[in-house]
Amino acid sequence: MGIAGFGTVGRATAGIISAHADLIAQRSGVRLEVTAVCRRSGVRTEDIPAGSKVFADWNQLVAASDVDVIVETMGGTDVARQLLLASLKLGKPVVTANKNLIATHGDELFALATSRNLPIGFEASVAGGIPILRVIHESTAGDRLRAVHGILNGTSNYILTQMDSRGIEFQVALEEAQKAGYAEADPSFDIDGLDARDKLCILARMAFGGRLQVSKIPTYGIRPVRAIDVHSANRLDSTIRLVGSAEAGESGIEISVRPWLVSRRSMLAKVEGVNNAVFLLGDKIGMQMFYGRGAGGDATGAAVVSDLIEIAQNLAAGQISAKKVSGFMDSHDLEISKNPRPVGWYLRLTVKDQRGIVARVAEVIAHHDINIDSLEQEPHLPKDRVSFVITVEPVSEPTIRGAVDAINSFEFMVEPALLLRAE
Amino acid sequence: MGIAGFGTVGRATAGIISAHADLIAQRSGVRLEVTAVCRRSGVRTEDIPAGSKVFADWNQLVAASDVDVIVETMGGTDVARQLLLASLKLGKPVVTANKNLIATHGDELFALATSRNLPIGFEASVAGGIPILRVIHESTAGDRLRAVHGILNGTSNYILTQMDSRGIEFQVALEEAQKAGYAEADPSFDIDGLDARDKLCILARMAFGGRLQVSKIPTYGIRPVRAIDVHSANRLDSTIRLVGSAEAGESGIEISVRPWLVSRRSMLAKVEGVNNAVFLLGDKIGMQMFYGRGAGGDATGAAVVSDLIEIAQNLAAGQISAKKVSGFMDSHDLEISKNPRPVGWYLRLTVKDQRGIVARVAEVIAHHDINIDSLEQEPHLPKDRVSFVITVEPVSEPTIRGAVDAINSFEFMVEPALLLRAE
Repeated sequence: MGIAGFGTVGRATAGIISAHADLIAQRSGVRLEVTAVCRRSGVRTEDIPAGSKVFADWNQLVAASDVDVIVETMGGTDVARQLLLASLKLGKPVVTANKNLIATHGDELFALATSRNLPIGFEASVAGGIPILRVIHESTAGDRLRAVHGILNGTSNYILTQMDSRGIEFQVALEEAQKAGYAEADPSFDIDGLDARDKLCILARMAFGGRLQVSKIPTYGIRPVRAIDVHSANRLDSTIRLVGSAEAGESGIEISVRPWLVSRRSMLAKVEGVNNAVFLLGDKIGMQMFYGRGAGGDATGAAVVSDLIEIAQNLAAGQISAKKVSGFMDSHDLEISKNPRPVGWYLRLTVKDQRGIVARVAEVIAHHDINIDSLEQEPHLPKDRVSFVITVEPVSEPTIRGAVDAINSFEFMVEPALLLRAE
Repeated sequence: MGIAGFGTVGRATAGIISAHADLIAQRSGVRLEVTAVCRRSGVRTEDIPAGSKVFADWNQLVAASDVDVIVETMGGTDVARQLLLASLKLGKPVVTANKNLIATHGDELFALATSRNLPIGFEASVAGGIPILRVIHESTAGDRLRAVHGILNGTSNYILTQMDSRGIEFQVALEEAQKAGYAEADPSFDIDGLDARDKLCILARMAFGGRLQVSKIPTYGIRPVRAIDVHSANRLDSTIRLVGSAEAGESGIEISVRPWLVSRRSMLAKVEGVNNAVFLLGDKIGMQMFYGRGAGGDATGAAVVSDLIEIAQNLAAGQISAKKVSGFMDSHDLEISKNPRPVGWYLRLTVKDQRGIVARVAEVIAHHDINIDSLEQEPHLPKDRVSFVITVEPVSEPTIRGAVDAINSFEFMVEPALLLRAE
């Protein structure tokens, strides 16, 4: 096989194949071998797998006669897309760890793979080492899934758990995460929810079966979450988690990526650091949870290797074929519900203190037929930056948005209100 | 297909196939059909799947020409074993939910299945709807697993969580579980750890690859756990869980089923009621956890159906073949370690109160080179039945056993000391 893109995941994949070759052969009856790697910026000699060629140009890797399966661990969507299309056209199965690619170009790629009767392995694209796609594809094939949600971005979860355990501000936690290598120099993809959105798009398509443009998923990240929110969450015996959630509602799917206020007693709250967790709700299986490392070379590489073993076994048996992946073979769109079910909400308003603020805010909330569940003004804050935290009883998102828009237009608001879903 | 044994799981399996036939066909490309069922005590008319024959004799079901796959949901090991052997000899793949059968007769059954090149589906045999066997088989095929442990028996977990949340005695919780249908009239299989032992045997064999006689697994149930233990656990910010655990140690596997004292902050403590959870530790994947309903007709039936879909797809493609299942194709034995690693322990002694007890117990413990971590005597207890709870720092099991044996021989002991592993 050939590995295109020889960064952390590519090297980890080669490392697992090298370290566990005998174990894999013994347990699976196939021997995996890296025959070529490709990296634009060159590969350090000590990283080159034994007996492997090195190409700078991925076209050569794809075309090489001793490369029968292509692993794509380059990232990005343009070159990666070209690579997968070229590989499939040459009759070579592909394995990718690229959520962005599958979420953005999945339809085109699976259409070509189907027409060529070739598999695309993409277990590594969602939740790292957690085999959630295989679970949805195989183990719940006989069940009707009602909901899938989870903590899908390890970087955001690391930042939120650091803010929680140490009471530090968002900016401090982010800078530390960057220093520790858990966040990129440009952290937007992780902290603004875009990475989680790609993964949620893949999960929702597979769970509910249908097309879904990733750009249609309402997405809010953790950038506006402040220490005061984590503090307020604690007071409510809760903490904050960035959750991707998709639910089959009566008039379509209810889907979003957003920070949630979650009870400290919940399983979601137990997911700490860079870990991921995915929850499935099915008619027959009930609620299931799958937890583990969501990223990192080894966990992601292990998922790549599990796909490679399956493909190698089928190649050896002369049974290679396209895999019918629910959601990526369907021509109909998943409708996004315009009438989502009521849920609780948490609002934090930051205001310049003046008389009558509570009355005006409470009036807007009452005017939208929303019941306040709790209200607290933090004491001892500077008068030009006072925080109110309000939790409200379940209402639909359009209703709370209406109230928040009205509140945001008040002249005393220092910044837009922060809105968290409260479970 | 034919379903032999038409109790809760058999009927649920037929129900899922009937309810989700179109969904399955659409997602998996195969249409499952129950053509015959068999139950010794007869089947109620309203339960008979549409178009299905009913046999009283399983031999007829196995031999029926329109039965191409056999589902065994009878339970027990004698007839079930005969049924699987007969089915395989007739060239028919089988799916079973029977952990006891696989744990006891797995070697014989997989040997025959291999020689006939036929699959045995047994996902439903461990942890109900949680697809843990598929995960071990497929997703971790490229990783070296170091440990597998979990809450494998829903009945015991239900009793322990009831004792915890309501402070009730074991006997009361057991009787309530029996009334609620969560425990059998003869509860031994569940509460004495035998059911968990069968499941752990299957998990350990698949995770570590080798033969293992189920009778060799040290097994302790929850029968001696008392309200006072749950109360003491609470004082230690902990609770009690029945855990099956297998770890690859330096001189073999360390394996047991026993009650553990687990921190309230741990994931194990979060597993409540009849739920199950399985933890895997791998070199590359790190720690993963899989959580869900461990029993019940629907969850177990869903696992049966997932196996049936896989077999039906392979039948349709003319690709039916034996599955190489790690641990059940190996001829070597898994060695059980005689030198397990040190762990913490919880001891509860029930004594007739007299002077000098603490000194004599403490002396025995010190004599075995064990450090006491905490000691508490419950106040206000009747003098003829006083409880001491002692936690000790990590020592190996033979060491703590030596101390416990010595303590048990004291004349003031009312009953043998209860020993829990403390995490």
